[in-house]
Amino acid sequence: MKFGGTSVATADDIRRAAGRIVAAREAGSQVVAVLSARGQATDELVEMAQEVSERPDPREMDMLLSVGERISCALCAMAINDLGHQAISLTWSQAGIVTDTSHTKARILDVRADRIRQALGEDRIVLVAGFQGVSGDSRDVTTLGRGGSDTTAIAIAAALGATVCEIYTDVAGVFSADPRIVPNARKLPEVSFDEMLEMSSSGAGVLQLRAVEYARNHSINIHCRSSFEDAPGTFVRTEEETMERPFVTAVTHAYEARVTLTGLRDEPGVAGDVFDALAAANVNVDMIIQNEPMSEDSKADLSFTVAADDLRTATDALEGIGAGEGITADERVGKVSIVGAGMRSHPGVAAKVFRTLGDAAINIEMISTSPIKISCVISADQVADAVRAIHAAFELGDEAVREEDPSGEHRPTVPS
Amino acid sequence: MKFGGTSVATADDIRRAAGRIVAAREAGSQVVAVLSARGQATDELVEMAQEVSERPDPREMDMLLSVGERISCALCAMAINDLGHQAISLTWSQAGIVTDTSHTKARILDVRADRIRQALGEDRIVLVAGFQGVSGDSRDVTTLGRGGSDTTAIAIAAALGATVCEIYTDVAGVFSADPRIVPNARKLPEVSFDEMLEMSSSGAGVLQLRAVEYARNHSINIHCRSSFEDAPGTFVRTEEETMERPFVTAVTHAYEARVTLTGLRDEPGVAGDVFDALAAANVNVDMIIQNEPMSEDSKADLSFTVAADDLRTATDALEGIGAGEGITADERVGKVSIVGAGMRSHPGVAAKVFRTLGDAAINIEMISTSPIKISCVISADQVADAVRAIHAAFELGDEAVREEDPSGEHRPTVPS
Repeated sequence: MKFGGTSVATADDIRRAAGRIVAAREAGSQVVAVLSARGQATDELVEMAQEVSERPDPREMDMLLSVGERISCALCAMAINDLGHQAISLTWSQAGIVTDTSHTKARILDVRADRIRQALGEDRIVLVAGFQGVSGDSRDVTTLGRGGSDTTAIAIAAALGATVCEIYTDVAGVFSADPRIVPNARKLPEVSFDEMLEMSSSGAGVLQLRAVEYARNHSINIHCRSSFEDAPGTFVRTEEETMERPFVTAVTHAYEARVTLTGLRDEPGVAGDVFDALAAANVNVDMIIQNEPMSEDSKADLSFTVAADDLRTATDALEGIGAGEGITADERVGKVSIVGAGMRSHPGVAAKVFRTLGDAAINIEMISTSPIKISCVISADQVADAVRAIHAAFELGDEAVREEDPSGEHRPTVPS
Repeated sequence: MKFGGTSVATADDIRRAAGRIVAAREAGSQVVAVLSARGQATDELVEMAQEVSERPDPREMDMLLSVGERISCALCAMAINDLGHQAISLTWSQAGIVTDTSHTKARILDVRADRIRQALGEDRIVLVAGFQGVSGDSRDVTTLGRGGSDTTAIAIAAALGATVCEIYTDVAGVFSADPRIVPNARKLPEVSFDEMLEMSSSGAGVLQLRAVEYARNHSINIHCRSSFEDAPGTFVRTEEETMERPFVTAVTHAYEARVTLTGLRDEPGVAGDVFDALAAANVNVDMIIQNEPMSEDSKADLSFTVAADDLRTATDALEGIGAGEGITADERVGKVSIVGAGMRSHPGVAAKVFRTLGDAAINIEMISTSPIKISCVISADQVADAVRAIHAAFELGDEAVREEDPSGEHRPTVPS
């Protein structure tokens, strides 16, 4: 069971999470719980570091940031003990999450779960700090990067051969679209790993991409659900014959930045130079489009999208290589995607998407596809219209409009 | 070098501590620095625990409380790295402070300093979180109790064979009396371990009793000094022939609570019952006085002093045993003590103390002595007068009245 930051933000939240954990134990399961840092705790720690140093040392940053999850674990263990169960929160070396040495963005190499198994054998509930591990060689503390707690939970579930990894968040599950935009968005009872991967990479913030990849590679069923209600959420699992297979499962959206290189020399190797420079600057490129040279002087335009945070780094990296005549940047473009395992066998989906957007007078600026996803870059201010139009065209919604939580606190939403 | 909570409270304080550490390194020393939690950090963590649980599990309390010092260490390491030196903050298992399993009040059993030595050998400055260790068997995190950071520093100094353990605080050293009470109190250039032990146990808060004991047992020189000024503070070390040996070194004071059992049965074993009950309730008794039975019915009165925090526990423990006719309690009595290694060879000191207090019209209610200390329990509201009178009678002060720090922040004082 993994509880995110909003699920352990206050003393009440922690007691609620403890109650959930104890209920699962009393229903007969052995439980390992992975906790994130409380609410804004990590941001506060980052601020402290910035007060002290302009470029904090990455190893020490990891020592600092790892503190937030430890606090959550200790407090939750206390609450579980108060409920009459034996909980134990584990230190870095006890939890056995072995990573490489890439501080602040480490990758898990191994989970040595002996101590966890031993504690489970002693009838204890085990609490593990998410988002962190210990490097194999130096035994230094490492962190997995933002959102790494999902990955911690999946990795432990895999190492223990768990039946399921339950990811508790402030949303009720995975939806057919963001309910803030589409009021009748449907909570999906199940999605396949491949679909979830495409959704996570195209704007669905409910599950981290890395965690879904890890779960797929190790065939760990994920149950993504709300920590504020008991209803089942969304199961993410291996695609099976029995699985419901609609043409399209969900519509997702995201905002990115776009860079366009104009007047590019139309020579072999130029595109390679461009993307080598971006890779060297550690910029992940999402969509790429190159126009064939139309004019006589054999020059082309090349556009690509990147995360908004990476825009400055990307343009800086390209200033140096002089691959073309100019660089222009759009700070914010929209991207709308449709995802569905059923698309593999239904080639008409793309045409229907383009027609739907055309009917809504939405111009498609870039397109990229995978066997189970179609993404279109559009104007940022048309994203909501595009999501609603596609969601309606493929009849993805519930019959009835969903009731909004009147408190507004526990939005059933897919954050983007 | 050990820095207390007020010495690492803000980003500026942390940079100041880092500057001190780097200066020591650049002067040619290898440096291990032990840090306390920042200012009120530990209190905030205790509050969090109390919000979640009425009786927090001690093991988890240690996991929680240990976080404060880790934050200080990571931040200070960043600041040192910014100054062009290589710092490394160590995790629990890396630092090798092995304790017993008494959570929240663990005792250090061993310091396995291999990793510290290795890091020093790599020309690094090593930062160790004070106040915490790892239990030998379970590898669980333990804490040493409030003020344990001094002990951590002394223990590491002993394990490494350090030349000196510098304890940085917000006071300039050890004084002949609390300068808030005695303006011309003198900063003592050196005191012996035995004197410091008596002073720490009779009200001088500048060094923890446990730390001084550890230092004496391992012959570790302590240099107790201010983190806000460069002047040397007070050296605490083994008594030598060359050491200045005044009759009396310092006057200390403290406030305690007193319990009186009246109408005690005058039988063998009654006092044993009383103090067994107190020991079972984990109450430390300081001074004890028993009046001989004066009346015909062979009953006596017994008084003892305890820390104010323990008063309730003490009276509760005694209600049960029915040793006498009644229990009365004074919530606050004063204790004034004079300490000095020179007293051993000067038997007239006690008489002079009593005469001095008598001349000042201060009634002595209880007395206890050791070879180098005399303590008198007096009325709490006469403590300041008593300290001043004794300090003057033994001519302990500077010729000139000390200048107070005009900011009032960095009081040169011996907190009680």
